[in-house]
Order: sequence, then structure tokens, then C-alpha cells
Amino acid sequence: MKHGNAVIAQGGGPTSVINQSLVGAVIESRRFLQVERFYGALNGVNGIINENFVDLTQCSLENLGEVAQTPSSALLSTRDKPDAAYCEKIFAVLKSHDVKWFFYCGGNDSADTCRILSESAQAAQYDLRVIHIPKTIDNDLRETDHCPGFGSAGKFVAQAFAGANLDNRALGGIYIGIVMGRDAGFLTAASVLDKRYNDDGPHLVYVPEVPFTEEKFLADVKRVYDRLGRCVIAVSEGIRNADGEAMISVLTGSTERDAHGNAQLSGTGALGDRLSDLVKAKLGVKRVRADTFGYIQRSFAGCVSEVDAAEARSVGEKAVQFGVLGESDGSVAIKRIGDYAVEYRLVPLSSVARLARSMPQNYYDMNVSLPTKDFVDYARPLVGKLATVAQLDAPIVGKKLKV
Amino acid sequence: MKHGNAVIAQGGGPTSVINQSLVGAVIESRRFLQVERFYGALNGVNGIINENFVDLTQCSLENLGEVAQTPSSALLSTRDKPDAAYCEKIFAVLKSHDVKWFFYCGGNDSADTCRILSESAQAAQYDLRVIHIPKTIDNDLRETDHCPGFGSAGKFVAQAFAGANLDNRALGGIYIGIVMGRDAGFLTAASVLDKRYNDDGPHLVYVPEVPFTEEKFLADVKRVYDRLGRCVIAVSEGIRNADGEAMISVLTGSTERDAHGNAQLSGTGALGDRLSDLVKAKLGVKRVRADTFGYIQRSFAGCVSEVDAAEARSVGEKAVQFGVLGESDGSVAIKRIGDYAVEYRLVPLSSVARLARSMPQNYYDMNVSLPTKDFVDYARPLVGKLATVAQLDAPIVGKKLKV
Repeated sequence: MKHGNAVIAQGGGPTSVINQSLVGAVIESRRFLQVERFYGALNGVNGIINENFVDLTQCSLENLGEVAQTPSSALLSTRDKPDAAYCEKIFAVLKSHDVKWFFYCGGNDSADTCRILSESAQAAQYDLRVIHIPKTIDNDLRETDHCPGFGSAGKFVAQAFAGANLDNRALGGIYIGIVMGRDAGFLTAASVLDKRYNDDGPHLVYVPEVPFTEEKFLADVKRVYDRLGRCVIAVSEGIRNADGEAMISVLTGSTERDAHGNAQLSGTGALGDRLSDLVKAKLGVKRVRADTFGYIQRSFAGCVSEVDAAEARSVGEKAVQFGVLGESDGSVAIKRIGDYAVEYRLVPLSSVARLARSMPQNYYDMNVSLPTKDFVDYARPLVGKLATVAQLDAPIVGKKLKV
Repeated sequence: MKHGNAVIAQGGGPTSVINQSLVGAVIESRRFLQVERFYGALNGVNGIINENFVDLTQCSLENLGEVAQTPSSALLSTRDKPDAAYCEKIFAVLKSHDVKWFFYCGGNDSADTCRILSESAQAAQYDLRVIHIPKTIDNDLRETDHCPGFGSAGKFVAQAFAGANLDNRALGGIYIGIVMGRDAGFLTAASVLDKRYNDDGPHLVYVPEVPFTEEKFLADVKRVYDRLGRCVIAVSEGIRNADGEAMISVLTGSTERDAHGNAQLSGTGALGDRLSDLVKAKLGVKRVRADTFGYIQRSFAGCVSEVDAAEARSVGEKAVQFGVLGESDGSVAIKRIGDYAVEYRLVPLSSVARLARSMPQNYYDMNVSLPTKDFVDYARPLVGKLATVAQLDAPIVGKKLKV
């Protein structure tokens, strides 16, 4: 029987439930005598090459219970992506600490890190089991029905728009909310999930999967505003024009890039402000307000989907089971097997690594610029219980003075 | 015994618990036979002059129960501020509907509307009882210890920064969050209320009460960044320079005004973006991110302080009691009479109308640019139970390869 230590790490952007997966793995590992010590690497793979480990074998259940409820990566994060030389350093460190299992919680970049490590370990005949634990609010991983982290971020976005809709209903005008998700529109589409009444917003939703044109946007807004005297709009940070250029770059002329060389989409209010300017200038509406939800949508403390939290916990547990009891490396995927029920499977790392998933076409109706019922059926179970919103049910009083 | 109908309306910006006050008043009125019908005016005083009333006497308790949990003004809102001619129209409508009580839920502008109506009614010898029900997330009303709506918005801001702090801790760099509150710093100061560990952010907080200088700001940020390798900063939308000019106007050259002629502070990410540019340019830090919390902090569905909700309900109930059983017009004020206990008093409308309150000097320490313990003692009971945030308590593993 294989025997040794294990390392777990977290990579990429945080989510509200990423520590549920961490804690699920830590606690699950305790019933396997094969796993002597369970180490956490700080700052993802960067913590491995620098030998920055903490011993999670020596965490109390009380501490782990609190950490599980805490948003953002308790082991900190990294944007490092290992090349061959980096991998050599990783193996040297892992060998010196007798590490036989590596668990990495992250998105498709982290899955790619797992793939590289898995292949390099096989080439070096180093007995290392590598398991990828999925997480991302963007919900853009392949193979899995959905990603842990998406449900809680979706709940945040749905409730933010439920409130913004009521705010806009009370004071009028046009409201634009910019939502994360990079090249996938799932999170922005989640803005419709807490709609209840026929006139509830968001009335328009724009996603990266469908080319954005100013003409269609302005015509849509005018149509809704003429009908309701107000309009609530959800816009993906990653909307692109027909040439595939990010609208934030087109509208602002900004060329700032993130660590992966992509246009910087988050951490600035520029896209919302430019769209707001556009509406003011072209439609002549005075009260136009734009909010960019920014980082709080992925790490707000206290907005968690109970479904998402439970599934994030489970993928951590399953990762350890697949790693210790199974025969191959892979990524844990969630398969939907009912309405609503799921099971967990291990899929090849190569089927998840680097690749991204977009929203299927049947989830979005280009004609009305809104997500479809198919999307709502897909996403509604994932966000858990949403806040109650109600309008007054009171009869109108007859006028005494006016006719 | 006075006998007739009552009207309630909501004015100004919404809060998460403004409908608790509405529902408190509606239900409380049902035990007084003097109050025949309880009408709601749609869109504040604007609904009165246009005779847009709904009959809240005919709402079910189930509907009212749901509305009470719903953020933003269920009766919609207005920024109208009546002059003499407007008041005449109001009296004509109120008389025609036999209205003897008027309840208006809002901030100091709404209190001023109440004052004008109260004085005009006395001058016209019209038997109208006028009661102001306080609400504002800015917490800037005089006489009351705090304002209903502040606690829930404070909870949102505290939990947003708790998450943003963990996000920043995981990925590094500098994070700037822009918070509402106009000329008062209470809401921005609430950003510190969910801090738990010594290195938790926000590490710096800037409020409108203290003149903002770029030099002090940059020196503060450098000091924290040099020590921690990261920095989380909470900034009031209404920060001003030593000449009293809004920094958003100074930094952007914007001259956009709101309905009251003040600089438009909300609904744009410009202030955060310019501060972010400043830090990048002057301190050479690459990863600087700014979020502007915007409208979601005042109307997010599903983030309510249970203390705030209960008090908002009570001020609505007390307003009806003061109105029906009392002898004078006034504004309902919350008095703190223990740690933590409150009672409700009716104070003169003239002591609340138009006037604003700033943070007391002992709530903020200019030297370290942070709220004081006095502020925390004041505000902590108001935001109710906050989300748990925990760091891993795990020992460091000894290095095998590096010294």
C-alpha cells in the first residue's frame, strides 16, 4: 500500500466556498492511514517551490469548521503557471517531503498545472497522484455540469440585481450593473434568477458569447425605457464586439493586461461608466447609474448558496477518495443525474486543462437580450434559497379631485 | 376623538429595512379605531399631489410580512421637495380624502418636507398630525443615536471588506473600495467592523469629515504596503480636499450634479479609478484594484442586520402611537439607554429637518487614518451578527531543501 504525505494548494481567483473544498479534503484524508501528513502549500504552486508548507494534520475541527465558512483562499493564491524548470523544482521539493498526493483547487489554469505535473511525474517515474479540484465563479470549466463557487457568486449577483431593480423601480432612470465572468456569460445570466414580478429587472442582459453592438444595445434600452420608464441592465465585463475585441478596450482605449496577458476586465469602473455615457448621450436619459460589482461578488462574506457550499465540500472529499482509492490522476467533475441531484466522477486532466466553456446557445435569446428558461432551469437549483422580494398587494384608491 | 384617514409615504434613497417601518406603521394603525383607512402615497409627496394612493388597509398580513423583508421603498420614492404652492396642492388632496395623519419615512430632506407641511397646516388651521420616520444609510440625522437603514448597510460594507481583505490577502496588491454616505463617514467607518486578525484590512479608512490630501494618502498607503506587502483601503464617496471641494470633482473634473445640486457621487466608478491611477503612478505598485460598492450597498436583497430590522419596525410602530395618542408633530428618534438597549422619543421636526450630522471627532484617528475604538463600540451593536472569517491555525512545516 502506497504511504506518504499529501499536499493541497489553491490557485487563481478566490470564491466564497473554495475553503469548503479545502476542509472537505483535509477532514476526509484523516480516515486514510496511507496519508501520514496533509500539508497545505501557501500561495499555490509557488508555495511548493519555496517550501512554504503548513501542516493541516494539526488543525482542530473547530478551526477547520470556521475556515470552511470563510470566503477566499485560506492557503492564499497564485497566478504562477509552471514550466519544465518550475516542475523540476516542484518534484525536488515534493520528493524531499515524501509527498505522494497533490491536490490543486482552481480553474482551468490550475487544471493545466495539474496536467503538466502529472505528465512530468510519469516521465520522471515519480509516484505522484495528482487530482484537480474544480472551482471558479465563471462556471467555465469543461466536463463538469457546473463549478463550485458559481452558485454562491450567482446568488450574490441575483440578489444584487433584485435590490438594484427595486432601487431603480423606486427612483427611475437606467441602471447598469457590470458582472464578472471573463469570456463566459453564466454569472451575468444569473442576474435574472431572483426576478419575481412581470416588470422586474434586469430587463436586458449582455453576455460575451454574443457580439455586442452599440446600435442593438441602444435600441434595446430605448425599447424597455419607452415601455416602463426605467431599465435595469446586466452586462458581462467580458463583452466583445464582432471582431472579438473586449468592449472595455474598445470604449476606453485601455491596454492594461492581467498576469495572463488578457485585457484587465476587473478592478475598474470604466466599462460601466462608458456605457453610462453612451446611454446619456444617445438616448438623452438624465438619471443613468452604473455599478461595477467587482471583487465583492466573488468573496463577499456572508452570501453563500447552501447547495454550492455542500457540493464544494463534497468535491474536496471526493478528490481525496479518488486520489487514495483510485488508480489515475484527474479532475473531479459534477454530473447532474436528476432535478436536482448530482454525482461526482473523475475525468482526465487533459479534458479540463486550459480549455474553457461558453454558455450553450439555448441559454440566451439574442432577440430579447435575455437568458432563456433553459438557463433558469439549469442555474436555479445551484444558487440555493434566494432573498424574498415582494410588492405591495393593495388596491388603488379612487381619486376625489382629478378625473 | 379625532377620526379620519392616514397617509404614509417614503422619500429619498432606499434602504434595506425601510419597508419594516412601513409595515410596522400599517399593522400598528390597525388597532386604532380612529384611523379609518391607511393609505400609501406612491412616489412620496409626488403621489399626494397626483392622488396616487393605494389602500394599505386592504393588505394581507402575509403580503405585509413579505414586503417588510424586501429592500427599497415599496411605495416608491421621490426627490421632490415641496414649496408653498406644492403644499397647497397637498392640503387640497389630503382634505378631499379626509386625511388627519401624515407619516413620512425619509432622511433630513423628508424631515424638512414634514416641517414645511406641519407649519403650513398650522397656519391654515388644518388639523393634520405630521410624523417623520427616520431612515438613511448615511446615518447623518440629528437627535437620533443612529438611523434605521445604517445597520444593514453597515453590515454589507463590513462583510464586503471582510471578503475583499481575504481576496487581497490571497492575491496581494492594493485594493480600494468606495463607500456611500455623502458628507458623513459613518458607513465607510463600518468597513472595520468585521476585522478579526491583527493583519486584517481595511488598513486605511478615509472619511469626508477630515480633509483629504494626496500626500497623506500616498504616505499612508506606502507605510502599510511596505509593512504587509498589501493594503486594503476604504474611501468615502464624499471625501473633500482642504478647500471643501469633493475629490471626485477635483480628480475627474466632473461637474455632474444630483437633484439637489450636489456633485454626483454615486453611480460611477470614477473616484476609485482615479485614486487607483494615483497609486499606480506614484507608488509604482502594479496590482491596484478599485471597486465602487454603489447602489447594492443600500438595497442588496438578503443582507439585513436583525437589530436594524427590529428597530426599523419599531420606529414605524412608534410613529403611529405618537401620531394617534400624542399631542404634537415630530420626528421619531432612537435614544441609546444601555449596552445595548434603546428607547424611542418624539423630537421637534425643526431639530432634524435639513440639518446633517457628521462623525464625532473621537470616532476617527487622523494619525493612523482609521476609526477609533469609540466608533467600534458605537457601531458594533447596530450591524448585528456578522459573517465568520477565520484563518487556518496550522503549524509551519520545516524546510528540507532550503536553509
